[in-house]
Amino acid sequence: MGDEFSRIATYFAPLAGVEARGLMDDAAVLTPPPGRELVLTVDQMLEGVHFLPGDAPGLIARKLLRRNLSDLAAMGAVPLGYLLTTALPPGTGEDWLAAFSAGLAEDQECFNIKLFGGDSSSSLGGISLSATLLGHVAPGAALGRGGARAGDEIWVTGTIGDAALGLRARRGELLDDTGFLTSRSMLPQPRTGLELAGIVSAAIDISDGLLQDLGHVCRASGVGAVVKAGLVPFSAQAALFGPEYLEARLTEGDDYELLLAVPPGRAGALTAACGALPVTKIGVFHAQAGVVALGLDGVPLNLKNAGWRHFI
Amino acid sequence: MGDEFSRIATYFAPLAGVEARGLMDDAAVLTPPPGRELVLTVDQMLEGVHFLPGDAPGLIARKLLRRNLSDLAAMGAVPLGYLLTTALPPGTGEDWLAAFSAGLAEDQECFNIKLFGGDSSSSLGGISLSATLLGHVAPGAALGRGGARAGDEIWVTGTIGDAALGLRARRGELLDDTGFLTSRSMLPQPRTGLELAGIVSAAIDISDGLLQDLGHVCRASGVGAVVKAGLVPFSAQAALFGPEYLEARLTEGDDYELLLAVPPGRAGALTAACGALPVTKIGVFHAQAGVVALGLDGVPLNLKNAGWRHFI
Repeated sequence: MGDEFSRIATYFAPLAGVEARGLMDDAAVLTPPPGRELVLTVDQMLEGVHFLPGDAPGLIARKLLRRNLSDLAAMGAVPLGYLLTTALPPGTGEDWLAAFSAGLAEDQECFNIKLFGGDSSSSLGGISLSATLLGHVAPGAALGRGGARAGDEIWVTGTIGDAALGLRARRGELLDDTGFLTSRSMLPQPRTGLELAGIVSAAIDISDGLLQDLGHVCRASGVGAVVKAGLVPFSAQAALFGPEYLEARLTEGDDYELLLAVPPGRAGALTAACGALPVTKIGVFHAQAGVVALGLDGVPLNLKNAGWRHFI
Repeated sequence: MGDEFSRIATYFAPLAGVEARGLMDDAAVLTPPPGRELVLTVDQMLEGVHFLPGDAPGLIARKLLRRNLSDLAAMGAVPLGYLLTTALPPGTGEDWLAAFSAGLAEDQECFNIKLFGGDSSSSLGGISLSATLLGHVAPGAALGRGGARAGDEIWVTGTIGDAALGLRARRGELLDDTGFLTSRSMLPQPRTGLELAGIVSAAIDISDGLLQDLGHVCRASGVGAVVKAGLVPFSAQAALFGPEYLEARLTEGDDYELLLAVPPGRAGALTAACGALPVTKIGVFHAQAGVVALGLDGVPLNLKNAGWRHFI
């Protein structure tokens, strides 16, 4: 009891914005940015499902925020702040909480967000976490999955498939000399801050897997898509691994890059809006339903997996 | 995978407001009510901690919403809608989801709220749930815990201690002939809709226990309090049980009534604002720190428990 309040005071009150009223009231009070729409998203992370027992608490905290920040990025929203829930087994130590809250603080600084409120509980099972993120957009400017049209180009930010290989490295199934792939799996980089309204016709963040998330856009937009595997940008570290990993790269999630539908003729505007962040055209939307991935030989790949799976 | 999407379409999409964009995008988009401040709160409910295995799914759903709605009530906020997380063990049946979503639908109707978004996951342990509720208040009108002053009166809505006895009835420790106490424990009535701004100086909902939550107000306000146990309103059903339950009634939570600090001379305004809902004066705030509960004989009670405890 007293323990819960002292933990809140020690680890979470320092993270709180003025909206949180010192985490002393029953709720937070937020003055919405005038003339803007609010964007709201929630994601949870559970031990054994979304992270592995023994993962560094600071990285768990940052990935929790970043998964949600990536959802805001996919909507074109500017992040504001978040509410947090924690359910921790009784034996969870002060060192875990100290590292977890330090991770939150680090990414609050990175992404200019504040803690608005939360709820803590004990857990009878493993660690269970959730974050509700709030952001804002200009009225009508929120991006979505439903705007892609036949003829629009398919673009992706950054590189694809690093996290799938990084997860295998974390499991000891392959060697990640530089740690790059592991880092891409543990600490994704949400693509917030891009001004894509008026340039892209649809957007999604790649959390289920490239082809799976492309399928979400196709279904929401009532179109189909063809992707050329040879155009999908892989990092130098991922390219060290052979074609036996091609399917994993295309169908497993956790990259948190953006997949964008871009009407013809806007490539210049898109690359200008993305600045130093590389963007790559990998295919095209068309009228016929379904997602097809063409291999290096131009023949459609026969893929066993359609997308994201839980760790275990 | 497909299972998750079809469950969302079947059970949750029908609950969604326009803000949820059909639960098809990465986030919800909300136009804030013009000229109002937003009030935000989140609470979780975990199997074995906040509810018992085998509790009716519809009642779990409604209590999840109502605990959060009670937090909005304590802030004086008008409810708008919510985001939901569910983590369910793999074997969770369609019947559980059907009853759970029916409970959500029922209380959405009762409290005029909509589902804005959510996240679903599988759980390796028991059922884990959270809801983030949004409401709104006039600028500066949010109530809080920090405004009580020495001389303010202590008032409570409704009756106190029913839920503590109801929990014992659910455990088979006492007989609840009418089911009233059990119902008060399973399905609290959040006191939303009261216009208390300008009348009360502080407010909190009673979730930890009457004396514990009074202590929260005292600490936030820098005052102390004296409560007379003989003034605390008990229901007729609770009054059937003897003084051996007095401590439980005063120190265990889950009643979700409001505890209010009311400056002298405002009793008439308060009772008018509460309409058909009974409100009762039970004590007074004073300058000296600490919470004292006087027994029927006027002697301070020596209480073992300071407030809320987990079920197990």
